[in-house]
Amino acid sequence: MENTRRNFLKKVTAAGIGAAGLAVTDQAMAAVNQPGEAAQQKKKPAGKSDGMLRFGFIGTGSRCQEHINNVLGIPGNKIVAVCDIQKGPLEKTLKHIAKFNVPEPKVYTGGEREFEKMLNNEEFDCVIIASPWEWHVPMAVAAMKAGVPYVGVEVSAANTVEECWDLVNVSEATGSHLNILENVCYRRDVMAALRMVREGLFGEMIHGTCGYQHDLRDVKFNDGVHYTYQEGGELRMGPTAYAEAQWRTQHSVTRNGDVYPTHGIGPVANCLNINRGNRFLSLTSMATQSRGLHNFVVDKGGANHPYAKIHFNLGDIVTSMIKCANGQTVIVTHDTNLPRPYSLGFRIQGTRGLWMNDGNHVYVEGQSKPHRWDASDDWFKKYDHKLWSTLEAKAKEAGHGGMDYIMMYDFIDAIRNKKPAPMDCYDAAAWSAISGLSEMSIARGGAVVDFPDFTRGQWIHRQPAFAL
Amino acid sequence: MENTRRNFLKKVTAAGIGAAGLAVTDQAMAAVNQPGEAAQQKKKPAGKSDGMLRFGFIGTGSRCQEHINNVLGIPGNKIVAVCDIQKGPLEKTLKHIAKFNVPEPKVYTGGEREFEKMLNNEEFDCVIIASPWEWHVPMAVAAMKAGVPYVGVEVSAANTVEECWDLVNVSEATGSHLNILENVCYRRDVMAALRMVREGLFGEMIHGTCGYQHDLRDVKFNDGVHYTYQEGGELRMGPTAYAEAQWRTQHSVTRNGDVYPTHGIGPVANCLNINRGNRFLSLTSMATQSRGLHNFVVDKGGANHPYAKIHFNLGDIVTSMIKCANGQTVIVTHDTNLPRPYSLGFRIQGTRGLWMNDGNHVYVEGQSKPHRWDASDDWFKKYDHKLWSTLEAKAKEAGHGGMDYIMMYDFIDAIRNKKPAPMDCYDAAAWSAISGLSEMSIARGGAVVDFPDFTRGQWIHRQPAFAL
Repeated sequence: MENTRRNFLKKVTAAGIGAAGLAVTDQAMAAVNQPGEAAQQKKKPAGKSDGMLRFGFIGTGSRCQEHINNVLGIPGNKIVAVCDIQKGPLEKTLKHIAKFNVPEPKVYTGGEREFEKMLNNEEFDCVIIASPWEWHVPMAVAAMKAGVPYVGVEVSAANTVEECWDLVNVSEATGSHLNILENVCYRRDVMAALRMVREGLFGEMIHGTCGYQHDLRDVKFNDGVHYTYQEGGELRMGPTAYAEAQWRTQHSVTRNGDVYPTHGIGPVANCLNINRGNRFLSLTSMATQSRGLHNFVVDKGGANHPYAKIHFNLGDIVTSMIKCANGQTVIVTHDTNLPRPYSLGFRIQGTRGLWMNDGNHVYVEGQSKPHRWDASDDWFKKYDHKLWSTLEAKAKEAGHGGMDYIMMYDFIDAIRNKKPAPMDCYDAAAWSAISGLSEMSIARGGAVVDFPDFTRGQWIHRQPAFAL
Repeated sequence: MENTRRNFLKKVTAAGIGAAGLAVTDQAMAAVNQPGEAAQQKKKPAGKSDGMLRFGFIGTGSRCQEHINNVLGIPGNKIVAVCDIQKGPLEKTLKHIAKFNVPEPKVYTGGEREFEKMLNNEEFDCVIIASPWEWHVPMAVAAMKAGVPYVGVEVSAANTVEECWDLVNVSEATGSHLNILENVCYRRDVMAALRMVREGLFGEMIHGTCGYQHDLRDVKFNDGVHYTYQEGGELRMGPTAYAEAQWRTQHSVTRNGDVYPTHGIGPVANCLNINRGNRFLSLTSMATQSRGLHNFVVDKGGANHPYAKIHFNLGDIVTSMIKCANGQTVIVTHDTNLPRPYSLGFRIQGTRGLWMNDGNHVYVEGQSKPHRWDASDDWFKKYDHKLWSTLEAKAKEAGHGGMDYIMMYDFIDAIRNKKPAPMDCYDAAAWSAISGLSEMSIARGGAVVDFPDFTRGQWIHRQPAFAL
């Protein structure tokens, strides 16, 4: 990566592409100096020419293709341009788009900074970023600075606390709406639980648990570039190529923290009104020893496999405890290196009852039999969220159990009606900041670290808005 | 309580009982000065005269009666004396003992320090302490100093870190075996999980979760002395009188920490070989706001109820994170003030699989279907612990699902065969220390606190022994 970047910089200098890059920066600086105005001036009304919303995609892997299904599955949207440095996923995505019988989008490829050209050349109502984690913020920032009014960024939105501030600062300065594409916030059970919270069934919120508990060992080692042998090599895991192995695994080598917190924390944050009457105050994290990835290499490739020498920094299980301004605590778990079935481990608990994801339990005081769990299904049918009861049929055709469709529907509704992003820059920052903060805390033996207030005090007055 | 104590001290001085108290102290100091010897000299061989083990009981509430069922249900034991300051439970216990057609025990009552007289006057092979929490350590220390060779103390063994040290120091100095009566360590599923851990099915241990999650609101408020109205008062909860309300509730008023950690941590500590090749290194805790007890008072007694003015320090949910010397982390939850079904929330996770109590899940790599849970029952039948497969019929007649019987059987086996306590002073200290440490951490905003090494470095060489 570092080599590629250096080569790119050389090329940029040689070919004079730097000028275009600088132009973007100047324009962005103007935006920063006159908050909101530069971006507003450049912004075109949604769907100007033909009433169609104009989409761009940066990063065209399988996640992009899932988004395209939903963007093109919802009437009124068109894809103007796509960008990727890799030919493979780009070609797949173009073929995928062709199936919809829509005009072929413009293609930007050939260099790591081609996305800047695309952002500079084209007019978008929305750009969706589904690239490796380390590119989320540079691309989102560039898109906002280029005047794109709505920017959807995949999870986790940012890797460090500084990057979280970048998202907030640039969104505030440009007036662009940054939306973190946290699909689990739209999971049917999660939305029903949120409705139960809002209708007071669990009383005052007291405690939450959540996490990303997913055996990703196959995903981290396959026939991607960085962490896979050539075909026939012993670490090739099968016919599926997870492109994530090209970049995701490196985070397990380098970092020790909760590198992927948002699937868990997003839904809990919504239940706790984080950034909207409540906020995360402080965090402490601990990591276990690191065994899972090394063991996997040795199990599959033998003790002499070259990867057996890699030191993986990432503890197999990382646990973070967060204290909220209104008194609640949240426990977040990251567990991706060990053999285990999938669970996001939600628990949403208040003074009158709770939902426990593991075991599919709900308890509501005065309605459940004393000291006995109810099956959560019965409750969630009763408290199905209106987005789900309305869109069920369409959603079910789409991926990830339908939540991706509902998420995109809600985002596009915001774009078309010029509403704030459903999960905005403050959400993106507060949820993603767990990564950087947990790394700091773990490195300091579990020390308490302060949670930045990304809203700069506005959380006191801001009102809940998500999926109301 | 404070008043009672002061009155007692006055009485002691007036009646000259102080001399007996001092005699105990002098003798104990001798024991401390010559570690083990004084106690050894005073100790009589187990079951000297008639081959029967001689038991004494301090605190004769319902928990004592459960222990008596098991002590007298196992052949070869007799009850020499019982002690309680309260007439009610004492009379009930004497009636209870009479049902077994055994000689009536001597009775010590009438003052807070009568237990010291009993310890001084009688010869015991074992004394069992089932008193309010704040009396566990004073009584256990007195029993060890009086030369009782085996002392069983109810959970939690100690309330502060200093008290934990008292248990360790006095046990070491006197040679008395201090056994914490942590019955959950003998729960059938817990013992099967421990066997699976020891037979390597879960691989190297990585992570544990546990806790005491039990709606105790009815227990904390009923017709006990401190926290109940007279009959007819609105807080009288029904015909059952939980004596715990007399003292347990005060801990929720005064303290903010995990005041009852051992049911959770004991089983996990056994799986992690704590004090035996591993140890707890550090801890950080956070507490939520305190709402449950106040709400309960208002719900049952109205906003003008005098208890509505009580400020309960105890956060409704207290979470502690512990880091172990061998890298593992443990999460301990205390949750007793909110409406919820009971769960100790065990999770025992290693490099090859895990047990999840909530949902009754087990996963073992290579044996379970990939990414699918097995029902834990099937695994636990296969890995039933020998104590259970041997003693099943007897155990099932006894209380708490049989684990109390198995625990007492194992303890009595140690006493009769002069073996170390199954759950010794180091276990009692390390498990109970979570209370004091969590209070410190919470008071300091979640700061990391060091876990004392109660073994003074012996954990490096000590070998696992529990229920082998």
